[in-house]
Amino acid sequence: MEHFFPYEGWTGFVPGSWNKEINVRDFIVRNYNPYDGDESFLEGPTQTTLDLWDQVTELTRQEIAAGGVLDMDTSIVSTITSHGPGYLDKDKELIVGFQTDKPFKRAFHAYGGIRTAEKACEDNGYTVDPELKEFFTVHRKTHNAGVFDVYTPEMRACRSAHIITGLPDAYGRGRIIGDYRRVALYGIDRLIEDKEAQKNSTGGVMYADTIRLREELAEQIRALKDMKIMAASYGCDISKPAKDTKEAIQWLYFGYLAAIKEQNGAAMSLGRTSTFLDIYAERDLKNGVYTEKELQEFVDHFIMKLRLVKYARTPEYNALFSGDPQWVTESMAGVGIDGRHMVTKMTYRYLHTLENLGPAPEPNLTVLWSTRLPENFKRFCAKISIDTSSVQYENDDLMRVTHGDDYAIACCVSSMRVGKEMQFFGARANLAKCLLYAINGGRDEESGKQVGPKYAPITSEYLDFDEVMDKYDNMMAWLAGVYVNTLNVIHYMHDKYCYEKAQMALHDKNVTRWFATGIAGLSVVADSLSAIKYAKVKVLRDETGLAVNYEVEGDFPKYGNDDDRVDSIATDIVHRFMEHVRRNPTYRDSIPTTSILTITSNVVYGKNTGATPDGRKAGEAFAPGANPMHRRDTHGAVASLSSVSKLPFMDAQDGISNTFSIIPGALGKEDRIFVGDLDIDLDCGGACCSPTLFDSLDINE
Amino acid sequence: MEHFFPYEGWTGFVPGSWNKEINVRDFIVRNYNPYDGDESFLEGPTQTTLDLWDQVTELTRQEIAAGGVLDMDTSIVSTITSHGPGYLDKDKELIVGFQTDKPFKRAFHAYGGIRTAEKACEDNGYTVDPELKEFFTVHRKTHNAGVFDVYTPEMRACRSAHIITGLPDAYGRGRIIGDYRRVALYGIDRLIEDKEAQKNSTGGVMYADTIRLREELAEQIRALKDMKIMAASYGCDISKPAKDTKEAIQWLYFGYLAAIKEQNGAAMSLGRTSTFLDIYAERDLKNGVYTEKELQEFVDHFIMKLRLVKYARTPEYNALFSGDPQWVTESMAGVGIDGRHMVTKMTYRYLHTLENLGPAPEPNLTVLWSTRLPENFKRFCAKISIDTSSVQYENDDLMRVTHGDDYAIACCVSSMRVGKEMQFFGARANLAKCLLYAINGGRDEESGKQVGPKYAPITSEYLDFDEVMDKYDNMMAWLAGVYVNTLNVIHYMHDKYCYEKAQMALHDKNVTRWFATGIAGLSVVADSLSAIKYAKVKVLRDETGLAVNYEVEGDFPKYGNDDDRVDSIATDIVHRFMEHVRRNPTYRDSIPTTSILTITSNVVYGKNTGATPDGRKAGEAFAPGANPMHRRDTHGAVASLSSVSKLPFMDAQDGISNTFSIIPGALGKEDRIFVGDLDIDLDCGGACCSPTLFDSLDINE
Repeated sequence: MEHFFPYEGWTGFVPGSWNKEINVRDFIVRNYNPYDGDESFLEGPTQTTLDLWDQVTELTRQEIAAGGVLDMDTSIVSTITSHGPGYLDKDKELIVGFQTDKPFKRAFHAYGGIRTAEKACEDNGYTVDPELKEFFTVHRKTHNAGVFDVYTPEMRACRSAHIITGLPDAYGRGRIIGDYRRVALYGIDRLIEDKEAQKNSTGGVMYADTIRLREELAEQIRALKDMKIMAASYGCDISKPAKDTKEAIQWLYFGYLAAIKEQNGAAMSLGRTSTFLDIYAERDLKNGVYTEKELQEFVDHFIMKLRLVKYARTPEYNALFSGDPQWVTESMAGVGIDGRHMVTKMTYRYLHTLENLGPAPEPNLTVLWSTRLPENFKRFCAKISIDTSSVQYENDDLMRVTHGDDYAIACCVSSMRVGKEMQFFGARANLAKCLLYAINGGRDEESGKQVGPKYAPITSEYLDFDEVMDKYDNMMAWLAGVYVNTLNVIHYMHDKYCYEKAQMALHDKNVTRWFATGIAGLSVVADSLSAIKYAKVKVLRDETGLAVNYEVEGDFPKYGNDDDRVDSIATDIVHRFMEHVRRNPTYRDSIPTTSILTITSNVVYGKNTGATPDGRKAGEAFAPGANPMHRRDTHGAVASLSSVSKLPFMDAQDGISNTFSIIPGALGKEDRIFVGDLDIDLDCGGACCSPTLFDSLDINE
Repeated sequence: MEHFFPYEGWTGFVPGSWNKEINVRDFIVRNYNPYDGDESFLEGPTQTTLDLWDQVTELTRQEIAAGGVLDMDTSIVSTITSHGPGYLDKDKELIVGFQTDKPFKRAFHAYGGIRTAEKACEDNGYTVDPELKEFFTVHRKTHNAGVFDVYTPEMRACRSAHIITGLPDAYGRGRIIGDYRRVALYGIDRLIEDKEAQKNSTGGVMYADTIRLREELAEQIRALKDMKIMAASYGCDISKPAKDTKEAIQWLYFGYLAAIKEQNGAAMSLGRTSTFLDIYAERDLKNGVYTEKELQEFVDHFIMKLRLVKYARTPEYNALFSGDPQWVTESMAGVGIDGRHMVTKMTYRYLHTLENLGPAPEPNLTVLWSTRLPENFKRFCAKISIDTSSVQYENDDLMRVTHGDDYAIACCVSSMRVGKEMQFFGARANLAKCLLYAINGGRDEESGKQVGPKYAPITSEYLDFDEVMDKYDNMMAWLAGVYVNTLNVIHYMHDKYCYEKAQMALHDKNVTRWFATGIAGLSVVADSLSAIKYAKVKVLRDETGLAVNYEVEGDFPKYGNDDDRVDSIATDIVHRFMEHVRRNPTYRDSIPTTSILTITSNVVYGKNTGATPDGRKAGEAFAPGANPMHRRDTHGAVASLSSVSKLPFMDAQDGISNTFSIIPGALGKEDRIFVGDLDIDLDCGGACCSPTLFDSLDINE
């Protein structure tokens, strides 16, 4: 009972086990107030907010004019404490903190890989301090250097041939969400105390695993201490819990800021913070500490900071992701285990920033959608989506079963319990190319090189479904093995050379680790196998016997039309591949999952894949994620969604994405999707950077 | 057969499996010529040698005058390629290479621990580059930082209380001997080719162990490449095998130089090189390439270089080791598995440097003694020992059983097959203090602090043997556990932050690792238990009940007098402790051994240990190694040696040392020890830095 109410910041909160242990969910469940009302309470932006946003707009204009980057660090390696404070306008900003000592200046992240960091600078016209480069080449090995020391020739070949793609082997892996709320609720000192206790409870025989964990806990404690130092440079003492909404937002943001100062992961997501913060806001409103206007101003300034998260990236990286995304994903709403929905006024305030500051792809505001969300909120979501095209939706009814009611989304679909689960991000295996390898006995259809094992190729003029499936299954088994082992190398080295001490400091001691694999080209594979089975596919070979093109004679069922003949093929492939993945030992006993979620990189994957038996030409883009191939879903939107929804979530627990654009008028009365009895038109064009994702939306209905 | 005779350097050698695989022993056995003659062929020093040695003497004088250090690096971190070439006199030196760019300038070794490295500088009046310090504090973690992140409070307490002492947790662990001969025999390119093949054969599932090994092999390949660069800076191309004696010495020395540039281990031993080099010398003599005068000159210059190995050390380190020893141990002679002794002319030439250059503690010239060594050589050894007090002896007849005929000694007694075995060095557990902990229920007799577990203390006025033994056995079990786990942490971190890539590049892929523990205070324990058993020991306690002194009533058998009543106690304790050690899992499945070999540190260990039941006063020095306590061996030298020789080698396989000083006239006719029918007087006074060690000499006879 020592910690029952020792802090001023806890006054007025309903106590529970959260007083005695680190347990943010318990705090939320005991203290939050579901809000069923509408958006009429919301306030517009203050003049200060508008002034600051004008500054941001002007700097953004300058950044674009400068070719994409306004300023870069080239001699300071980014750490939690590497930089002094940075401001837009110190007198106006209510929530403070930038990654470096000024806005729009990109930090230098060296731990992931010095060559990539250097290239990011050089490609933008900056030169890295040669001493720094030497130090990170000679004395301080990086994640990237470690990985490439260990890669086998086979792994390198698979990487070069793009059958395994987008591996996080030269920058941060991302997909780890620190529970940044802990900083606000407990203050750093209490968190350090907890970590010290965790370390003391990790003893006994000093096996390598025990040693690693003790060292990691020591690093985490170091990160917590550094967070205090960093916050102090902004004049804030975060050693004790936050005392009001402003401090709660600020403390929470400092936790997140520590993470993005330390890591440059491809997805540095925020978590699930709005309902947590609403508890502070309700208390402050009740006690007259702040007005609604003030609360919205804090939120607007906070969101503005999240919009300004920037990393130094290479043009290749930006090409892969079609831009410079950060995936500062904030997960909102959803329904609690106790049956109460988790929409609060703060959920509205977050979404309202899209109106106060205008639309923006970041932070990636994600609504955890449930059929049981309140009507007012559903309507508000629809309105904001229509107005701004900047909201992402995920299926809470589905994910709640596995993850409970305090999970969040990392990146676009990876769900994890906040502070209790993390992911080893694993990019994607190109299953379409794998099918071509099965046909060509492991030779790459583009280069002719022997990349895969020298299994017997198919030599017949016409493809036989059973023969192809047998060979494909073998080739998938091989691919799954190389893929998992490649990821094992990556995550071993990431832990060794680029450990996320700040983010892991805001996790429990014993976390569940998801080993995330990914699939690209699923609909191409399904259609190809369907063509082989239901039509006739003739193989065209070059002079070396390499199958380089296909002629399809006759029609065949195509994925995306709610036709079980082909949809079952897609489902079967996902299941088979996942089974092959599961047969391989994974680093740190992480739990294998897979995802089908290429949102933008599908273009690049397609570019590097030869012609396929479904009639797709060499180099033609794949469909994104689990989408049907473009124009092949001829039976309407619901049929298309239905095909996707057959994919088994337990085989693709890391998420299935279906990018879905609806033009006005496309939805008939039968096609009402998600807002009860409202017919709505959603306009989410190709220019939308944060696509509206209906991830197997409501398939449990 | 690809590599049968591809190299000019191999002309004239008898072929064997060494042509086709890396196998130096096979090369030696097939090619060496045992030498039975006397020393009359030896040549004195050349004028060049004398000139160079005068320079060394003058620099040594300056170094002493400067307080012990003449120059130190403070801004360049030592690596294989960190420095340009350094010379005494470029025109005169026939064998080249210094640790830094000039002689007597001590390198800056940061990987083991930045604080220790900094302290070594500051204690000698030098200041470390602050940027360097920051890098190694913030970005590049060291072995020392890693270890202290993981140590448990119990481990720290044991370290502070000196019950576990001398742990290599702030500098290189040493005790690893690269097979430097491989550089000469094969050249670097062939060694790289071999390592690449080893790496390619390390695949399959990427478990953490596999990843670690693949990364280590990559690091080893990097080290080999760096050796070429370093040698090239001295104008030597070591990519191909050495072509004559001079090159063979030089290539071999470059291998060793890479090791000492990279590591600052407490013992950086050379291996077993003389008989290997003799093969080149015999070929050169036969072909008229070099004269005996020239050969001796190469050897003199080589040995001169070995004498100039220097490290930056702290005063504490020097106090523990009573000076600044390097243990550049070279193991010579011995007998081959095929029955031929392995004395060659080169063995004579090495020992002859003690005459040409004068006596010196380094390199630690160690004769692997066998009763079957040729008479002429035995006489020569006796003569050199008498004249120079600079020869160490080890029992080859004993060690050959375990290690074959191509092992060498690391430091003073640790034996290992060259290139096939290495040691995880583990300093020492203070068994005398452990006995006091058994009496005091885990409280330290000096500080009164609870360091060990709170077992029940002994409360009786007089000590009962059975009760003490029971409690002592429990306390040893605890101590062995903490000790082994502490070493597990140290060796995990050493591999992680301070890996010996140069030395391990000159090892096989799969090496046997000895997990070396050590014992201090054995004779104190034996005598104490003997006193408790055969006399009466009264306990004197302070006001807190802490046993702080003992009164012995009556006489008791003392270790060192060939009295089985007490000698069996010593043997039993060694066996029990070793059994406790063996019960604990060891890092990398290394094989536990123990040693009883404190040669100088016994003084420090005694200083930190309270009064013991044998009547030894608090703070009084322990006997060195397995020696009897001073003046208690009253039955003559042979009886004393006989007590030591009862200790079981299989329980103390890492070595048993017995420092043995004989003054003229002490040996009667019955006491002839080792040179057949010669009576000799050995004078090895306290000033002898490399003590003459008769390690259980000839106990197999």
